[in-house]
Formats: sequence, structure tokens, C-alpha cells
Amino acid sequence: MIFENVTIIGIGLIGSSLARNLKEYNLVKKITVYDASFDYMKKAQQLGIVDEIALNVEDAVKEADLIVLATPVGAFGPLTKKMKPFLKKGVVITDTGSVKEYALREIESHLCLEDGVIVVGGHPVAGTEKSGPEAGFLELFRDRWCILTPSAFSNNEAIEKVAQMWQVMGMRIEKMTPVHHDKVMAAVSHLPHLIAFSIVGTVADLEGYEQKEIIKYSASGFRDFTRIAGSDPTMWRDILLNNKVTVLELIQRFVEDLIALERNIRWDEGDKLFELFSRTQKIRKEVIDAKQDQPEHEKRLCAEMRKI
Amino acid sequence: MIFENVTIIGIGLIGSSLARNLKEYNLVKKITVYDASFDYMKKAQQLGIVDEIALNVEDAVKEADLIVLATPVGAFGPLTKKMKPFLKKGVVITDTGSVKEYALREIESHLCLEDGVIVVGGHPVAGTEKSGPEAGFLELFRDRWCILTPSAFSNNEAIEKVAQMWQVMGMRIEKMTPVHHDKVMAAVSHLPHLIAFSIVGTVADLEGYEQKEIIKYSASGFRDFTRIAGSDPTMWRDILLNNKVTVLELIQRFVEDLIALERNIRWDEGDKLFELFSRTQKIRKEVIDAKQDQPEHEKRLCAEMRKI
Repeated sequence: MIFENVTIIGIGLIGSSLARNLKEYNLVKKITVYDASFDYMKKAQQLGIVDEIALNVEDAVKEADLIVLATPVGAFGPLTKKMKPFLKKGVVITDTGSVKEYALREIESHLCLEDGVIVVGGHPVAGTEKSGPEAGFLELFRDRWCILTPSAFSNNEAIEKVAQMWQVMGMRIEKMTPVHHDKVMAAVSHLPHLIAFSIVGTVADLEGYEQKEIIKYSASGFRDFTRIAGSDPTMWRDILLNNKVTVLELIQRFVEDLIALERNIRWDEGDKLFELFSRTQKIRKEVIDAKQDQPEHEKRLCAEMRKI
Repeated sequence: MIFENVTIIGIGLIGSSLARNLKEYNLVKKITVYDASFDYMKKAQQLGIVDEIALNVEDAVKEADLIVLATPVGAFGPLTKKMKPFLKKGVVITDTGSVKEYALREIESHLCLEDGVIVVGGHPVAGTEKSGPEAGFLELFRDRWCILTPSAFSNNEAIEKVAQMWQVMGMRIEKMTPVHHDKVMAAVSHLPHLIAFSIVGTVADLEGYEQKEIIKYSASGFRDFTRIAGSDPTMWRDILLNNKVTVLELIQRFVEDLIALERNIRWDEGDKLFELFSRTQKIRKEVIDAKQDQPEHEKRLCAEMRKI
């Protein structure tokens, strides 16, 4: 048993997948859950993946040895402020937020080092476009990376315990600074999501097109973008606004490259197109070689097919 | 038996999936294949999905009742020119090209209506990012749309026979003009592919980033774009250059919308972001409701899992 009493705040895709794993591998004594949505908590209880639901923050955290913040990052600040008076000495707070500099600032600005509250920033890099406790599943974290971003509020023992918890679920651990984390994620996650939201908006709004046809033939490419653009709106609003500087810089870079590509098409520079497309094909191969190619929802699909 | 002797030119993903279906459903008497790559032809023969391989265009087409052009569209013109002297009267030529105005112009400009050669433009809207005869599979076309684009070279009997062939494989048929086809595909397929190629190029080239990290954490979004950007370079060069006017127009529209989104982020207009992301989430739901959400490679995965 790594922790005795664990409180998960936010029982959506990530929170509920975590709860499933904690149960499956018998990692903790008791799982308490708190969520702004009472429905989500009831659902989690019905699914049998939590032991107790708490009706307020005080009840949720007062006995906790580990608190996992798994809500959109915009809620981290207000939540920490509310829970602070009720925290046990020695409690470890970790989170699953996709932007780490902002997330840790929001959490730590409400705490004092002297309170004996330990913080270990974390980001399990896994997910699907689905939300809610029913969207979670056991295999979500398997073979994916969990990035821990230690800070002044961390200590080695807590870092190792949090790392161990994710490792049992099949994750590999990497440690880096919050700043570096946010820079890398802006490129591999935030920009791609933003582009997906943007193109789905553009295509859906095109004048002179029938919406019905767009949906009907979406299997030819558009469909894949809608999957990513089906991600949780609140979560992504919070991420993009809170990693703004890097994201804005990358949008500029992307537009530059796209305009160059536009010129290649306009001037019939087929060799330049071929060169880029061959390069991107090689990058695809690297992703496959690194075993990062299979989306989480496919892992779930396979797991379910195996049961049939 | 819908056709007796069928010749497939180009035995890649689409051509080989077609051959598998023609065999499986016993739709034709003989399948002959011709491909610029001798390896591809040998492979197709080993897979047992073709009856004969032809070493030149003459041998490939001289007995054919149906010729299916399944190469990149850039090859359609030279191929038709070469095969013209050897075509049987009454032969039907169809194709699987993703741009139809250019494809039909390339084919028909080498033919005369008096020759008794019938042309039925076609586009089975299905595919994966993989190429080659081993990438094909039986279920590829199931529940997808096949767009036929009749022209002056078509006749009703041939249109119905080609339609019937695709329907047996599980496709649904829609007819439209080549111009309308290209307009719709520019939005749902060509622009999305272009954007995927572009963003994968941008992210891979970012200075100050370690390529290794980009690949390692690609599961957080980037990975999904690499899949689309792993598509065949020759095919996509040909498509984009040959639907240029509409594609260039749509790039402009996309950049406009992206810049607006950039402003929303810069000025902290969270409500605007939330509104767009909620809208795109609804579009995702429409794609799911239209049963167009499951990518072809997943259909294959499921089919394979069922066998285990």
C-alpha cells in the first residue's frame, strides 16, 4: 500500500481511470472523491471505483494522505485555498494538469512551506477526447509517460511514492522543470489541439457548403480532427490561456510554415511538397518505433474486444 | 458476376483492398494487375488476391472488360495514352482518384467518344495512412461512401455496374459532378491533410526542442497528426497540385480563423474559446451519429481481434 487515504478531486476521464487502477492494484486503503458535479460522484460510486463521496472540500481532504487534483487546471487555485485549513500535516498533493507552471503556482501560492504540505506536480501524458467517469478505463496509462515536475514544495520520498503509484499502472516516469514541461507540451499537445479546434471550426463554417456533406464524407480526413476537437472545452480553454506565451509563439511559427506551403502549391513546386510529405512520413515511423502510435481509445477497444 | 475480366492498375492500399473484395465475393472471372512496382505485383500474387500479373500496359488491358485506375492521379494521363490502342470496344474504365475534375480530364482527353470506351469516374471515400498491397484489407470500404462522377463518357448501364460492384463491398453510393466532388473533398480531406503535413513539419523543425522529446510525448496530440501526415507523398502531392484553386482558397479561410483564435488567446477571451470548443465538440457528435467516426485502421484492428 503506497498511500492509505487517497482523495481524488475531479472524477472525470483521468480521475476515474486513476481510481480504477488504485482499486485494481490494491494500492490504497480508501478512495474518497469530490467533484463539482454530484452526478459524476454518484456515477463513480455506482461503478464501484470509489469508497466514499464527499459533499464538501473539508470532508474530502481532512483525512487524506494523498490528494490528487484531476479537475481542469483553472480550478486548482480556488480548491487549494478552500482545502488549506483542513489539510493533515505531511499530506502529499499531486495533480494531473496539462500545464505545470501555472498549475503549481495556483496550488503553491495558497500554501506555506512551514505547513508541512508536500506538493509533487504531475502530468500523466495520456487521454482520450472523452470526458466523465464512464469514459475512464484501466489501460489508459499503460506504456505512456508520466512527467513529474518537482518544486520547492516537493521532497524525495513523496516524489518516489507518487512515481511508484503511476508506475504500477504501467507508466514510465520522467522528471523535468515545470517550464520545460510547458514548452514541450505546447509543441506536442497544445498547438496540435488548437489547430484541430480551429480547422473543425473553419470547415464547419464554410459558406456554400452543405453541413450534411461535410459530415457524410468526413472519413476522408476531417473526421480525425473532429476526434481531437471533441475534447473537453473547459479543460482546453484553461490550458491554452495558461500557457499563452509559448502557444502564441508556436502559432506564429505554424502560420509561417503553412504560408510557405501555400506558395509551394501556388507555384507548382511539387518536389518541395514531396520532400515535406516524405519527411513527415519518416516522423510517423519514429512515433511507431517509439510505440506511441496507438491512441488510448484504441487500447480500450482492443481490451474490450479481447473480452468478447 | 458483374464483370468478367478486371484489370487493376496500381495495387496499393485501395487496389489491393478492391482485389480482396472481388475475390471474396466472387464478383469477377479474372483479376489482372499492373503496377509500376514489380515488387507490389509479386506481393499481390503471393497474397493470392490477383490471378495474373502483366508486365506491360498492353498485356494488362487488352482483354479487360473493366479497368480500375488505382494509382496516384498524376499517372492517369500517361497510362490512358499508353493503353488506348489496346482497349476492347465497350470496356469500362473507372478510377479511385481523390480529385475528379483533373482525373477525368487526364483520362478522357486521350479518348474519343466514338471509340466505344466508357468512363465512370469514381472515388471510394475510404483509406488509411498505409500504402502497398499488404496494407489493404477486406473491410476497408464497409459503411463508407463511394462517390461516382458521371461524365459525357459514361452510360447508365456502366454506372450501375460500377455502383453495384462497390455496393457488394459494403459501400453506399452517391453521384455528383466532378466539380462539386472536388469542392467538398477540398474541405473534408485535402485541407485537413495539408494542415496535418504542415503541423508535423513545423513541430519537427522547432529549434530549441529535442526531437526525442517530441516523439516521446507524442501521445498527447501530435501523434494523431503524424498518422495522417504518414500518408503517401506522391498521392498527396498530386491531389494538392490538382485541386489547387479550391485548396488555396481554403488555406486562406483557415489562416483567417486561426488568427482570430490567436487574438482570443492573446486577449484572454476565454468565453470565445469555450464557445468554439463547445461547437467543435457538437460536430464530433454529429460525426459519431453518422457512424463515420471509426477510422479504417481501427476497423481492421477490430476484424483482426475478432479472429484471435
